[in-house]
Amino acid sequence: MNKKPLPLSQVYRLLEPGPVVLVTSAREETPNVMTMSWHMMVDFEPPIVACVLSNGDFTYDILKETRECVINIPTVELAKQVVACGNTSGRTLDKFRKFGLTPLAASQVAAPLISECYASLECKVIDTSMVDKYGLFILEVVKAWIDRSKKNPRTIHHCGRGVFMVAGRSIKLPSKMK
Amino acid sequence: MNKKPLPLSQVYRLLEPGPVVLVTSAREETPNVMTMSWHMMVDFEPPIVACVLSNGDFTYDILKETRECVINIPTVELAKQVVACGNTSGRTLDKFRKFGLTPLAASQVAAPLISECYASLECKVIDTSMVDKYGLFILEVVKAWIDRSKKNPRTIHHCGRGVFMVAGRSIKLPSKMK
Repeated sequence: MNKKPLPLSQVYRLLEPGPVVLVTSAREETPNVMTMSWHMMVDFEPPIVACVLSNGDFTYDILKETRECVINIPTVELAKQVVACGNTSGRTLDKFRKFGLTPLAASQVAAPLISECYASLECKVIDTSMVDKYGLFILEVVKAWIDRSKKNPRTIHHCGRGVFMVAGRSIKLPSKMK
Repeated sequence: MNKKPLPLSQVYRLLEPGPVVLVTSAREETPNVMTMSWHMMVDFEPPIVACVLSNGDFTYDILKETRECVINIPTVELAKQVVACGNTSGRTLDKFRKFGLTPLAASQVAAPLISECYASLECKVIDTSMVDKYGLFILEVVKAWIDRSKKNPRTIHHCGRGVFMVAGRSIKLPSKMK
């Protein structure tokens, strides 16, 4: 495993660009994984994240019960697995085994990291007051991991219906923005 | 003006990839514009969007009072203006005039569209119950506009500290995902 701890103050730099993520959760023995694009930062440090799940998602039920998950960030090399995880349900399938993903033990939560993803954020649910109305969970990232050996990770960004924008070049402008 | 109406069912395809947006608002005569990256889709149709603003932002006050805004999506050609809007406050500056942005009348809200942006989403605030705690506003997109003459619009995605990822190539995979 090449993942090293990432300071929590840097987490927003991974999620703010809006990549598709793979959310892992665990209840009983078999971990689950789902594809998610509806997430945003809410605060810098500790990093607070909001996300929206459908109440039909298996992960929705697990998250309400266990109040833990891991947000894993895949790169374009995993695009097929990302779509496969988005098109199937963990209620009837062990997606880790089926799609060749490798679970790694997390440090603060029962849900696993995904070895193939270049970054993983261990999260605890801290507010469920908007879950019934909007499916909106508020999470706190309690531990963050990054694989710095993956140079220039190309995240993917869902534009709907299986179309993804692949992260392109970077530009840097003088800025006071955090 | 080249902007044409976009069906509301298609709005999620613009925001789901996570671009930086320019939020316009209006109180009294002078419209304001701020740079925002903390937003996500909450529902498809009608399109519901969540966003997080700092209570120090001028737009935060205007949004609480007027309950209306426009989310405008810029492309890389506007990167300098995006950063400039993020580094200044509308309390003391007319950013439209200062940064050469052109306001256009919206159809459903008092806040203006930005002519230079390839898409604009007129929004009404529908839920402020998480504003005091998280700065989290729930918006409904009531009218959407897109300039289809801008082929291959290259959105920009903030990675923190003035670093932006520019939208790269597109890939399409067979998918049942919406």
